[in-house]
Amino acid sequence: MYLHGGDIYRNVGAIDFSANINFLGMPESVKEAAHKGVELSIHYPQMQNTGLTEAIAGYDAENDMMWGMNEQNYVCGNGAAEIIFSFADALQPKKVFLPAPTFYEYEQALTAKVPHCTVQKYYLSKNNSFDITEDILNQITEDIELVCVCNPNNPTGRLIEKSLILQMIAACKRVGAWFLADESFMELVKGHESYTICRDIQSISYDRLLILKSFTKLFAMPGLRLGYGISPNKALIQKMKDSLQPWNISLPAQCAGIAAISEIKEHRFDEWSRERIAGERIFLYNELKKLENTYDCFKVYEGAANFLLFEVQNEPQAEWLAEKCLEKGMLLRSCSNFDGLGAGWYRTAVRDRADNEQLVETLRETLKALTEPSDIIGQE
Amino acid sequence: MYLHGGDIYRNVGAIDFSANINFLGMPESVKEAAHKGVELSIHYPQMQNTGLTEAIAGYDAENDMMWGMNEQNYVCGNGAAEIIFSFADALQPKKVFLPAPTFYEYEQALTAKVPHCTVQKYYLSKNNSFDITEDILNQITEDIELVCVCNPNNPTGRLIEKSLILQMIAACKRVGAWFLADESFMELVKGHESYTICRDIQSISYDRLLILKSFTKLFAMPGLRLGYGISPNKALIQKMKDSLQPWNISLPAQCAGIAAISEIKEHRFDEWSRERIAGERIFLYNELKKLENTYDCFKVYEGAANFLLFEVQNEPQAEWLAEKCLEKGMLLRSCSNFDGLGAGWYRTAVRDRADNEQLVETLRETLKALTEPSDIIGQE
Repeated sequence: MYLHGGDIYRNVGAIDFSANINFLGMPESVKEAAHKGVELSIHYPQMQNTGLTEAIAGYDAENDMMWGMNEQNYVCGNGAAEIIFSFADALQPKKVFLPAPTFYEYEQALTAKVPHCTVQKYYLSKNNSFDITEDILNQITEDIELVCVCNPNNPTGRLIEKSLILQMIAACKRVGAWFLADESFMELVKGHESYTICRDIQSISYDRLLILKSFTKLFAMPGLRLGYGISPNKALIQKMKDSLQPWNISLPAQCAGIAAISEIKEHRFDEWSRERIAGERIFLYNELKKLENTYDCFKVYEGAANFLLFEVQNEPQAEWLAEKCLEKGMLLRSCSNFDGLGAGWYRTAVRDRADNEQLVETLRETLKALTEPSDIIGQE
Repeated sequence: MYLHGGDIYRNVGAIDFSANINFLGMPESVKEAAHKGVELSIHYPQMQNTGLTEAIAGYDAENDMMWGMNEQNYVCGNGAAEIIFSFADALQPKKVFLPAPTFYEYEQALTAKVPHCTVQKYYLSKNNSFDITEDILNQITEDIELVCVCNPNNPTGRLIEKSLILQMIAACKRVGAWFLADESFMELVKGHESYTICRDIQSISYDRLLILKSFTKLFAMPGLRLGYGISPNKALIQKMKDSLQPWNISLPAQCAGIAAISEIKEHRFDEWSRERIAGERIFLYNELKKLENTYDCFKVYEGAANFLLFEVQNEPQAEWLAEKCLEKGMLLRSCSNFDGLGAGWYRTAVRDRADNEQLVETLRETLKALTEPSDIIGQE
């Protein structure tokens, strides 16, 4: 079973293009804080993550985000994944509406936590670059209890216009459905201010809403595990907290999270990251576009975050391309297990220039071999 | 709300007698491994904790523990607390039988995870040093779906004879109930081999059983969070894993856990800890016993682990003793919120000689003041 990227454990030494982590790495101050957290770990973490929650909510308030919210509207998780599981547990929705392809954890959490949960998929079309269109609004019917949307979407990297997100929330309001806005990758998007709904909570004025945020991706700390959720609905947040143990976030992660907030405040690590990622993503996209122009079987999709989706049609073997890259020491994310994608689909992280060049070169060689298979495969 | 010990965050700088952590501290090799885990944390943790689980199961097999079990019988948790929550979630027992007083997390998890769960308490008597006796066997009736027992019990520190544990499991077998054997403190008990059921799984031959273990206490790493459960019932373990996110244990904790197993194998850190803890516990118990012989209002209970329970009767204020100790820089665990105890009950960790002496001295002064209240309180 291979459900996720980032499995460096069965692929020791490979450059990891399979996990969508900020290639700038963990800021030194965040790493130092995590080390300090290890030294403090003869003690229990602070219960209910009080200090961390105050730091996050305080930062949001200072920056006119999450208007009207306070600490009781926030719940911190052992990674954003724990928030998804806890949300499913607290909400127990019987019918859920998901676009496809999208992040697998929604469905996994709902299946695990909600007996007899029906998941209704809304399949996005590659002919439309997997964009969600207004057509989705008619699909949010009275039987739907929860709509989950990842913006920008994983694994496509496609952004949804804020106006459409707000229309979707209005559609949820009409039928009484909950809305999960997963913004785990939003902070990695240049121009994210126009897309995030973090400054719209007041005007949305609907409390069946959970916004999901992650420290993992921006601060390159997936091993430490840290994410959080915000909802205008304090009863939901309390129910989620009740479903979690009192010490759900380790001390290294609590310390790292507080340092990460300072890193944004003092050094604008987020802005710097967005600039660098956008630059490298454009480079990588343009290089992959050249491959697309050379090889009919190859197609890349433009994304807004730190990863790109591409397709290799007519592959002899579904996993062949990933295997060839792995032989050269590069781990790609096969998207063959994404509902709505399948064999021949891959996601790659945007990394630094040298890594990106190496990936492009390997893909070029592999595509050449794929179109002239006798040279490498030794078949025919 | 003050439910647990270890809250050093509202009591900065105090010596922590409130958390039951091995006073020898985190072994250097474990700490180094956790630091290495921080350095690796730009990567995701290994999914499903494969390497860690193999290390634990491998160690058990080499030492004739958990006979017949393999990795599929183990589930690792973000602290033992996560295992308790996950067990409640997977099992959904409608009626649960608990001794009182005992660790609060069972009831908290069951209340949070199981709608309409009834908790039936079996109140232990201080006149019998809170020991569980054979009388408990008649209480395990057909309506009971789960029995939870902590051995040695927290906060009393009292051990249950293995023969009685086995009789309790037999009683569960007769009525089809599950049995949770929480051995989180067992590795801290000198002579634990006679009490643990880790070598009895085969002869017990009953699969509605979960044994709970913790790294937190022995390896003094509560801030890193690590515990695990073992059950002969693979379907239960799979269901628990399904209820958890794929990356529930941070990389620092995974690395620390693997190093902790090596620390036992190579340096017998567990044996050394049991010796030292037993020595200090006997010292502290004897000193507290002297206070008991001097002050009628004071009574200490002999425990087998790294903590001791004591009672101060006729206190003017329930939290007065803890406050006096805190003024002197020592944080005690008030047991006023333990069902079956109440105001005037305290638990103290066994620490090193200097700390223990300081605690005894402060208690002596405080008891003196308590019996001659006008000197300090300035009342009457």
